[in-house]
Amino acid sequence: MTSVPPDLHAWLSDHDDAIRGELFDFLRIPSVSARSEHDADTRRAAEWTADSLRAAGLSATVHATAGHPVVVGEWRGAPAGAPTVLVYGHYDVQPAEPLDLWTSPPFEPTIRDGRVYARGSVDDKGQLFLHIKALEAHLKARGRLPVNVIVLAEGEEEVGSEHLAGFIEAHAGELACDAVVISDSAMFAPGLPSILSSLRGLAYFQIDVQGPAQDLHSGSYGGAVVNPAMALAKILATFHDADGRIAIPGFYDGVAEWPAHVREQMKSLPFDAEHFRAETGSVSLGGEKGYSILEQLWTRPTCEVNGLLSGYTGEGAKTVLPAKAMAKVSCRLVPNQDPAVVESLMKAHVARVAPPGVAVTVTHLHGGRPWRAELTGPLFDAARRALAAAFGREPVITGEGGSIPVVGDFERILGAPVLLVGFGLPGENAHAPDEWLSRENFTTGMRATATLWDELASLSK
Amino acid sequence: MTSVPPDLHAWLSDHDDAIRGELFDFLRIPSVSARSEHDADTRRAAEWTADSLRAAGLSATVHATAGHPVVVGEWRGAPAGAPTVLVYGHYDVQPAEPLDLWTSPPFEPTIRDGRVYARGSVDDKGQLFLHIKALEAHLKARGRLPVNVIVLAEGEEEVGSEHLAGFIEAHAGELACDAVVISDSAMFAPGLPSILSSLRGLAYFQIDVQGPAQDLHSGSYGGAVVNPAMALAKILATFHDADGRIAIPGFYDGVAEWPAHVREQMKSLPFDAEHFRAETGSVSLGGEKGYSILEQLWTRPTCEVNGLLSGYTGEGAKTVLPAKAMAKVSCRLVPNQDPAVVESLMKAHVARVAPPGVAVTVTHLHGGRPWRAELTGPLFDAARRALAAAFGREPVITGEGGSIPVVGDFERILGAPVLLVGFGLPGENAHAPDEWLSRENFTTGMRATATLWDELASLSK
Repeated sequence: MTSVPPDLHAWLSDHDDAIRGELFDFLRIPSVSARSEHDADTRRAAEWTADSLRAAGLSATVHATAGHPVVVGEWRGAPAGAPTVLVYGHYDVQPAEPLDLWTSPPFEPTIRDGRVYARGSVDDKGQLFLHIKALEAHLKARGRLPVNVIVLAEGEEEVGSEHLAGFIEAHAGELACDAVVISDSAMFAPGLPSILSSLRGLAYFQIDVQGPAQDLHSGSYGGAVVNPAMALAKILATFHDADGRIAIPGFYDGVAEWPAHVREQMKSLPFDAEHFRAETGSVSLGGEKGYSILEQLWTRPTCEVNGLLSGYTGEGAKTVLPAKAMAKVSCRLVPNQDPAVVESLMKAHVARVAPPGVAVTVTHLHGGRPWRAELTGPLFDAARRALAAAFGREPVITGEGGSIPVVGDFERILGAPVLLVGFGLPGENAHAPDEWLSRENFTTGMRATATLWDELASLSK
Repeated sequence: MTSVPPDLHAWLSDHDDAIRGELFDFLRIPSVSARSEHDADTRRAAEWTADSLRAAGLSATVHATAGHPVVVGEWRGAPAGAPTVLVYGHYDVQPAEPLDLWTSPPFEPTIRDGRVYARGSVDDKGQLFLHIKALEAHLKARGRLPVNVIVLAEGEEEVGSEHLAGFIEAHAGELACDAVVISDSAMFAPGLPSILSSLRGLAYFQIDVQGPAQDLHSGSYGGAVVNPAMALAKILATFHDADGRIAIPGFYDGVAEWPAHVREQMKSLPFDAEHFRAETGSVSLGGEKGYSILEQLWTRPTCEVNGLLSGYTGEGAKTVLPAKAMAKVSCRLVPNQDPAVVESLMKAHVARVAPPGVAVTVTHLHGGRPWRAELTGPLFDAARRALAAAFGREPVITGEGGSIPVVGDFERILGAPVLLVGFGLPGENAHAPDEWLSRENFTTGMRATATLWDELASLSK
């Protein structure tokens, strides 16, 4: 079994305190890409990322886009014939609300029980930053890397990476590479290094239902005017059948069954359904009948309500017949579903089931394609060796229910295979209050990715 | 036809400007009873009401309750054997949100097109205040009233009058009277004085659905964890059948059919369905099949969503699987439905249809019984004469879809008949942005109620 190169290990250990201090500075920037009032913060996080790349020994440029900036760092001093590897991450974060459910403030990183609590700690600032520091270990301890490196950090991952595919296309020449490495996912369990082999795609909608022109008195008008909140509930209630299957006609047409050997491997993972249920705090689990929990999460599509708003939601009672009602609804997609096709199916379905008396609009806010990796080749062999060196055991192959839409874009535009190796953990509260990153995983993750650069020298150019 | 007594008419005309100034002062107090941050304002409105009664020549006391105060004004100088009449109104108002839909600020009364725009202008400060001024006209122009008068103004009408029935019971001796007069309703049309013969009752609920213990990432957990917002939508979608009938078992058991002669009279009212639809701004009307609009509004029960809240409701997209979802749901009730029975039926129904995987609680926030008047007797004859004198035409008999729960309490506890004569107008936006009161109705309403006191001298003690 390979081991972590001692010089890199030593450099990372020697700079442990300084690295944590810098990580905390990064986490303090409330770079919430979904909220325009945080645009300046998001810009600041981009500049911070570029400064951090420069300090590590790379050159760095902050590229303006029609949305939030893209940061590109480069080091191209490898020997002739060496491969080029691109590291992708994102410096933007999810909104932190509801704030009252955070134990410590979301943008004031706090260590408790070996965890760094902060919005963005695991998704994805911590995981982007550990790559920068692993690169710095090479450049400071040895003055060089064995491969050419590009670091691409975007600021719109949490709002659908709207401008990233266009950026990659426009800069395909300078971003040309032999492999892409992404750390924006979780290990299957503590101590169990994991290579992610699949991602679900996404089609995210907003459904707006307009009833009367303005809020009305529910006594004076109730009974004759169609209630838009009730109409919305009726629409949402048509999305699933009694078996938890999505009842939008045509929804499953594109769904490919999972290869039998991958489903078999899933069964061998150490998964405790009752532990998973208890972790969620649900009274019992549900979902589509006929599939195991991991199959539901990794291999099957979903249709979820992400938000609801109508009428009076404050303290006490207000007898209002609301003018409008809104739902945010998103579908997780699996190979080979297409977000554009799902958008058409959703719009047709809602138009068909919407009750008379209200005006309903469906807006597609953003989408991304699902993805499934090839599980062979030098990139994956290199990753397996590096993870084994740092964690002391062979990695497992996992799936992921979340979406990283850019993965498909990298493969399509740059023609390079993508490696997804993440250092989060189950229960890390990504997108929820009290998001955290394991300190141990952060440290071991730096060692693993530092080791990875040596292993990647063997990649064919 | 009676006419408005010239001395009262003259006094009211002479003091027109001062009366409007005082009304505006009253309307400037944001006495929102539903919001604890306005408790001091609500208290101030009670004191203002008491001061206004004293200025009119009555004695007045502000009585503390477990909630907002009750104001009682009295004048007991009528000749021996004269009847006693109680006027009821409320000084609290609905919340003003959404503020951005008001043309002028809700607590800065503004006159446009012959209307006074302000929260509480018609519901009910303006209508309470016109009674106080009509009493003052008698006491200032003549030094006396022909009957003994009690004015009872509460501050919890908009939150269910929780403490009023107890107050009336505790003070039944001093509140004993021969009739109750309430102005908290609307005329059927401009120039058409109206006596209200029925009110719907209310049973107001909050439904809380708890899914996971906290918000989860919809990618990492979606598909296995039951979504509480989707569960809530499924519950709400069971409340009506395809014909707009309420599908809660047993819901219609108590519903009495309306007397044929009252339904006939309804048909003779000048009602334009298309005008009503256009006024609401709905694309088309709905509701229970087989009933006219006025029947739907006045004689049939409803089940409405008043508010919805779950997950992420801000700008853009957040891929959250929410921990909880909330709906405010209220049923308007008709004779002889009982709010307590409807509460039991609602709770049993929700428990039956709630999907597994979530915890659902139904809380009954408040309720009130429906009411139907006797349309004969000296009280109604007096009202008809007074309205005819002020408006120059005979009043019509109408129904009302809203609720004034205290009406039933007065009849039950004090054993006195209730007269509902209101001076609002259709489209007045009670409970909505841009609430308004017709200036003409305010003035004519004062003349009508001033005239009423002379007519009520004929009431039997």
